[in-house]
Amino acid sequence: MERKIYLEQTPLDEALKKWTDKFIEKNINKPLEGEHIKVIDSLGRITSEPVFAKISSPFYHSSAMDGYAVKFTDTIGASEGRPKKLKIPNQAVYVSTGDPIPDGFNAVIMIEDVNLIRTQKTKNPPIPPLLKGGEGGFFEYIEIIAPVTPWQHIRTVGEDIVITELILPENHKIRPIDIGAILAGGLTEIKARKKPKVVIIPTGSEIIEPGSNLMKGNIIESNSRILAGLVSEWGGEPIRFSIVPDNIEALKEAVLKAAQIADLVVINAGASAGKKDFSSAVIGELGEVILHGLNIKPGKPAILGWINNKPVLGIPGYPVSAYITFEIFAKPIIYTWQGIEIKESETLKAKLSRPVASTLGMEEFIRVKVGKVGDNIIASPVSRGAGILMSLVRADGFVRIPAMSEGIGAGTEVEVKLMRHKDDITNTIVCIGSHDNTLDILGNFLKKKYPKFSLSSAHVGSMGGLIALKRGEAHLAGAHLLDEETGEYNVPFIKKLLSDEKIILINLVYRQQGFLVLKGNPKNIKGFEDLARDDITFINRQSGSGTRLLTDKYLKGLGIDHRKIKGYDREEFTHMGIASAVLTGVADTGLGILAASKALGLDFIPVAKERYDLAVPEKFYNLDMVQKLLDIIKNDSEFRITVTSLGGYDITDMGKIVYKN
Amino acid sequence: MERKIYLEQTPLDEALKKWTDKFIEKNINKPLEGEHIKVIDSLGRITSEPVFAKISSPFYHSSAMDGYAVKFTDTIGASEGRPKKLKIPNQAVYVSTGDPIPDGFNAVIMIEDVNLIRTQKTKNPPIPPLLKGGEGGFFEYIEIIAPVTPWQHIRTVGEDIVITELILPENHKIRPIDIGAILAGGLTEIKARKKPKVVIIPTGSEIIEPGSNLMKGNIIESNSRILAGLVSEWGGEPIRFSIVPDNIEALKEAVLKAAQIADLVVINAGASAGKKDFSSAVIGELGEVILHGLNIKPGKPAILGWINNKPVLGIPGYPVSAYITFEIFAKPIIYTWQGIEIKESETLKAKLSRPVASTLGMEEFIRVKVGKVGDNIIASPVSRGAGILMSLVRADGFVRIPAMSEGIGAGTEVEVKLMRHKDDITNTIVCIGSHDNTLDILGNFLKKKYPKFSLSSAHVGSMGGLIALKRGEAHLAGAHLLDEETGEYNVPFIKKLLSDEKIILINLVYRQQGFLVLKGNPKNIKGFEDLARDDITFINRQSGSGTRLLTDKYLKGLGIDHRKIKGYDREEFTHMGIASAVLTGVADTGLGILAASKALGLDFIPVAKERYDLAVPEKFYNLDMVQKLLDIIKNDSEFRITVTSLGGYDITDMGKIVYKN
Repeated sequence: MERKIYLEQTPLDEALKKWTDKFIEKNINKPLEGEHIKVIDSLGRITSEPVFAKISSPFYHSSAMDGYAVKFTDTIGASEGRPKKLKIPNQAVYVSTGDPIPDGFNAVIMIEDVNLIRTQKTKNPPIPPLLKGGEGGFFEYIEIIAPVTPWQHIRTVGEDIVITELILPENHKIRPIDIGAILAGGLTEIKARKKPKVVIIPTGSEIIEPGSNLMKGNIIESNSRILAGLVSEWGGEPIRFSIVPDNIEALKEAVLKAAQIADLVVINAGASAGKKDFSSAVIGELGEVILHGLNIKPGKPAILGWINNKPVLGIPGYPVSAYITFEIFAKPIIYTWQGIEIKESETLKAKLSRPVASTLGMEEFIRVKVGKVGDNIIASPVSRGAGILMSLVRADGFVRIPAMSEGIGAGTEVEVKLMRHKDDITNTIVCIGSHDNTLDILGNFLKKKYPKFSLSSAHVGSMGGLIALKRGEAHLAGAHLLDEETGEYNVPFIKKLLSDEKIILINLVYRQQGFLVLKGNPKNIKGFEDLARDDITFINRQSGSGTRLLTDKYLKGLGIDHRKIKGYDREEFTHMGIASAVLTGVADTGLGILAASKALGLDFIPVAKERYDLAVPEKFYNLDMVQKLLDIIKNDSEFRITVTSLGGYDITDMGKIVYKN
Repeated sequence: MERKIYLEQTPLDEALKKWTDKFIEKNINKPLEGEHIKVIDSLGRITSEPVFAKISSPFYHSSAMDGYAVKFTDTIGASEGRPKKLKIPNQAVYVSTGDPIPDGFNAVIMIEDVNLIRTQKTKNPPIPPLLKGGEGGFFEYIEIIAPVTPWQHIRTVGEDIVITELILPENHKIRPIDIGAILAGGLTEIKARKKPKVVIIPTGSEIIEPGSNLMKGNIIESNSRILAGLVSEWGGEPIRFSIVPDNIEALKEAVLKAAQIADLVVINAGASAGKKDFSSAVIGELGEVILHGLNIKPGKPAILGWINNKPVLGIPGYPVSAYITFEIFAKPIIYTWQGIEIKESETLKAKLSRPVASTLGMEEFIRVKVGKVGDNIIASPVSRGAGILMSLVRADGFVRIPAMSEGIGAGTEVEVKLMRHKDDITNTIVCIGSHDNTLDILGNFLKKKYPKFSLSSAHVGSMGGLIALKRGEAHLAGAHLLDEETGEYNVPFIKKLLSDEKIILINLVYRQQGFLVLKGNPKNIKGFEDLARDDITFINRQSGSGTRLLTDKYLKGLGIDHRKIKGYDREEFTHMGIASAVLTGVADTGLGILAASKALGLDFIPVAKERYDLAVPEKFYNLDMVQKLLDIIKNDSEFRITVTSLGGYDITDMGKIVYKN
């Protein structure tokens, strides 16, 4: 072997301790200093020192009502039987709410509680227009029928805020209401923590800016934008450098420049492992590599380093690895620097829907979708590849599998750290089963019409869907299972698998299945007989899927031994996966639906028309979100038009109940 | 009565229905249209149409490993016993992770799994420097000991995202990870909802900009900044107009201009009720007043209107009313316009600590502090005035009291809609009892050193604090209760009131109590004897407070009848309240601590030195947050210096345990 194994596999806890110890050693494991900012620009900032009131609020005794300011001694003895007259303005002065109380006065009587006594002769202070009732005129006296208590209906100085009072403590995140209180307390500037500056350096000669001309071998730079977004969400200030090509001098220069302006420097490698060594070499040369390589998956090749008293993170190139390592190593210090505590994401206990194997010695971060079906909370693992960005987009949360575990069995209770709000999970319809492009459209229509609700579809094949219903893990299942004996779709399978369950079966579409082939059908594929040809590579669907059943039924009928078919063992989970494999030469053909073929510009050799239904247990049928979904299927003409335009769909029976037990 | 009652009292539900119906009638109760924005600027924006991938990711077959690309047919038959040699570059081509797979190749063998066979004669493609082990040289063959499976270690096209695939549905709030996926899907622009524009017009001739020269009668404009902050937090774009004075033409002009550019116009009245009529007049003249006046408290004088097809909200001037009505009427439509659902704040069930009376026919929004003490969750009402901004700053949440209720008894379970994170409540030390300025300092030091924890102090007097401990409603209580018989502080009261409870009593400070008087003591007050003088107005502390006990003890000792003391019935709840009342002429004197006198520049006539202790039930003594607090009291020299600098404190025994049962 010519290659040195350059990565350690430091356990995560140990790595975190090394990282934190270094911050302590350098004395920067503490809040950043403050800077003067305008109060009106302070929303979301963190106080770096306590805020004390510079004035009282109100800062003068003011009327809490519209009415007359009086001296309470003048009112003693007034009663209904013996009203008292108070002379304007000597004994009674009109005040609006908020007006200062004239000196020597010490109570207010509401306007509703006085009688105004008019005279044509005396000139009084003008009465506000709205009180005149349109008549105009002057008043000489007010008449009252009860004494007042001292200071009644007066907001005395400091009623809200007393000068020198603490309005906000240090390390407080400023909310809209706080801004109001600080302004009312007489301040226009406060000291807030400087925002931690995080410089992100994307590296790699193969990395190009979004929007550039794409050539084979290029990778669109998107990681830095993900990391920058996270920095913003955490309260820091992201500064993204331009892409640095694979040139050690250029990288050195960028890193040194970054270390001058940043609180934290992040080097984001390309996808190549060689590239990561490159970062490590640069950090090592300019400063110190604390460690390179963790026992976590994804995230293994991360680098922790230190240059000129500035922490430097070497973040792996695969986006999921980048996301996970950045959250682990950057988030805590960005919070510490602001003087605030991380609000831990909510966690949920959930049952794992499928077993998950895990590498002994590696701590794994499994992305899961979470569904609440009846009283069951189910976590279903999504794709695990470190390069699968969509696994994070689709995930509802993470499950951590400890280094000392070889995996977790199905049905085990796991703790999920949520990436979404709990309500979003409660308001999600879990659809497990066969894949059809229509489901994506349906999910989008649901979200569009009812933003509160989501449709989550997992593609495990038609049989998998019915089994999920049986286990109480799904609200509905998409299925197109052809019973070989009766020629009937779905119903025989439901009777067999779900005998104890009340099921309502609703047609979604009829659809065309056929062979997907390159434009012009260069290999001249006409039917299943051709799959056994030497020059044909097939791509299959996973077992348990309706399409796989269809394939096997035809092969059996034609007496074709599947062992003779090249690629029979390579499985995709969706029609689009099949189409993509054909388009890009992984296979010559695969069985799929017309919509997938049309989407990628392939040719289509029809094989069968089949019925695709949604099975809904009666107990979920009346849930609001399910009713909303069914309403779209039954009644939304825009939905129908969109589905029809995909091609290959017959919507004659869309929304009809085709079976009910 | 000259004045017309101009306010209706429309029930809240009815008002909301009228408001929403109008949006439906005008057909604007739906998401705003979209606008093109850059993906890299899209964090937090909402998709206004589904986002579909324009390219696959990866868009070429790429190596998932560093290694050699091979053709899988060439590898058939390789084994440890019979290794196979593959010729470079015809049968094997070096690829780094992310590199495109050369045409005709269909698998990758990891670099670790090949032997490189060297020759000096043949020129091979260069091996990346990091693989050379520093030796340089060329390789002619790779040797393998196992066959490969087709497409192993290759990321096939679309492994992450298949062209045309739905990346995000409509009405989705964009997260950092979504930005990465959209960029990887080949997009640089997307359509996002326009941000709802909310124009906020502050009105009132008495309203001035923060930082202006203050004169009696001025009110610092802060409401618009609170409302603007809320708009930002809700995802809208606040546009604040300059202050419009009380001039009907000026207001008309501002409102018309606002209606042209805004989705929602907000007129924020001054504090004067006259002003509100003014808004209503303008709205009525330019358009239509839907209603004026609600049956809610605070918030009664709100106006709902409509001008030129634009909704107009007349928001009351008192800040708490402004906050509540704005949240009720503006928040839902701002969310609807964005196509997203309001994430309801968390709610908690809590026990009300004190009875709350409520006006029949008015729905009341009571601000409460919430504390978790042991297993008890306690909601304590804070000040109820619509003008008390600090009641919102200090509140942890709201309790709604229905219109048909006359109040809620102490101990009743209520639902609290939280304004803070649940964790913040769990991490708050609840301190109920006597007020001392030192507690504010202590709270700030706790937050500064341990951002996770907060100290919440409620000032209900020393007795109230001990009773709160007894009821399990506080973690600690501040007390300075002098037992008349024994002359001992606190201990006799603990023995009497908390006989069943293990209590640890810790000294905080000794402090000076005395009469607060204006600078120079103009009324020449020397002692309690002076309180009964005709020309003296006293201001008292609430009953149950240690200071009140002290007052009453002295009056009794001197045989002074408290009915002879003017102002004896007027109560303040804090030392600072007393100081402010004296400073501003509400009273001539009151009993308080030296620190309060110093803070407001008053003179101080000493009466007594007293001991101020913190009582901690043993069951809470070892809580992490309590230990952290006690550690500050015992060991933080900066804290001691700060307390000493307040004046009038003796810290000799600070942190000492003075009693334990």
